[in-house]
Amino acid sequence: MSFETNLINIVLVDTIHPGNIGSVARAMKTMGLKRLSLVNPRIFPSDDAIALAGNATEVLKNVSIFSSIKDAIKTSTFVYATSSRERSIQWPVLNAEQAAVKIFSEVNSNKEISIIFGKEDRGLTNEELELANRLIEIPANPEYPVLNLAMSVQIICYEIMKSSSSTMNKDWRDYPEVNSDQLQRLIDHFIETAIDIDVIDPDNPKKIISRIKRMFTRLQPDEIEASFMRGFLSGIKKKLK
Amino acid sequence: MSFETNLINIVLVDTIHPGNIGSVARAMKTMGLKRLSLVNPRIFPSDDAIALAGNATEVLKNVSIFSSIKDAIKTSTFVYATSSRERSIQWPVLNAEQAAVKIFSEVNSNKEISIIFGKEDRGLTNEELELANRLIEIPANPEYPVLNLAMSVQIICYEIMKSSSSTMNKDWRDYPEVNSDQLQRLIDHFIETAIDIDVIDPDNPKKIISRIKRMFTRLQPDEIEASFMRGFLSGIKKKLK
Repeated sequence: MSFETNLINIVLVDTIHPGNIGSVARAMKTMGLKRLSLVNPRIFPSDDAIALAGNATEVLKNVSIFSSIKDAIKTSTFVYATSSRERSIQWPVLNAEQAAVKIFSEVNSNKEISIIFGKEDRGLTNEELELANRLIEIPANPEYPVLNLAMSVQIICYEIMKSSSSTMNKDWRDYPEVNSDQLQRLIDHFIETAIDIDVIDPDNPKKIISRIKRMFTRLQPDEIEASFMRGFLSGIKKKLK
Repeated sequence: MSFETNLINIVLVDTIHPGNIGSVARAMKTMGLKRLSLVNPRIFPSDDAIALAGNATEVLKNVSIFSSIKDAIKTSTFVYATSSRERSIQWPVLNAEQAAVKIFSEVNSNKEISIIFGKEDRGLTNEELELANRLIEIPANPEYPVLNLAMSVQIICYEIMKSSSSTMNKDWRDYPEVNSDQLQRLIDHFIETAIDIDVIDPDNPKKIISRIKRMFTRLQPDEIEASFMRGFLSGIKKKLK
């Protein structure tokens, strides 16, 4: 782990089975995390929790217990909540991998973040979800998306470990990605230039244009790359004059 | 799921706790898989297994039981084994995501594959591992990489579901990626052109050149994209004459 793992606060709300708390502790430790907060656990401390924690008993020993979610998250800059249910409210939803990339970059900027997991049988209420800045959804079988609590924690922590160790994050993302407006302008500029130099077939432009859009979208250029590409395209225009 | 999930055979070897078999069934079903084989389970069938399977009891009902790994995998073309321990033998090792991408493409070519998981307390023996074509390692905390059996199954199945649903596989990869030689020639062509049109600073070319290389390498263009980009660069040259 190349970051301060204490900046990631895993928050379990109203957990019914203490065994799940133990399994969560183990799941966290296997992925290098250790800060666990419990909001109104039904039974804790508990031998069941210890039995299922494996070699992660120190995660249990250092647990913080709160009587409200607000208290558990109050030192965090960003708050994520997990949800597998369709919601009536519209809220930005990230999949587990996208969330992990964001979380890792926030922690790298020294922000504390909390990730909230609801009660086993009903998840988080809408009111609880509204305490979060962002929702995380774990991709799952639409016919049975009901992951066990500790399984959900395992996958989120696994994705965080993956982002923290991926070369993608460590090595190249030294500038922020362009936003969608900047990306659109880059794509337009590229297409315009391709038309100027006669490499887009005017009889059948559509297919190649959608391929160009797809290519740049997939690339997700950072600001330096986009600015270099804009300079490259302007350079062509200058030479053509 | 866009593939025949029966082509993926999850094999649990010498499982001690029947509860783990139930948790595995649930983990599989949440990710759309359903074919489970047991090799010498200590206790099965079992109420503990049913209790932990949640809504995945039909995975348990359809379990196949074998007395040897060889029998459990005999109809499979490719066999994967999971391992978290360092091994003395050298064997090709994939991480969970790489393995999932391979598995998905094999299943899409209508091959049957098996994924073997060892006993809770010791994993697979070297002899058992040698029955596999490839090893899968789940990235984990090097100080405590000991995932619970069902957690390991959950992560592998999650990665398989991700590869089956990623836009990368479904939507855009309609042509093969260029090989490294073709990629190198595209990068050289791009850099040459950038020099021709004066957008690479001749006093300090190195940094931008390494950014260009990184950008194209990250893009991993397919053959159509690379050929379009080559045409684009040649179009510039033609106009400059």
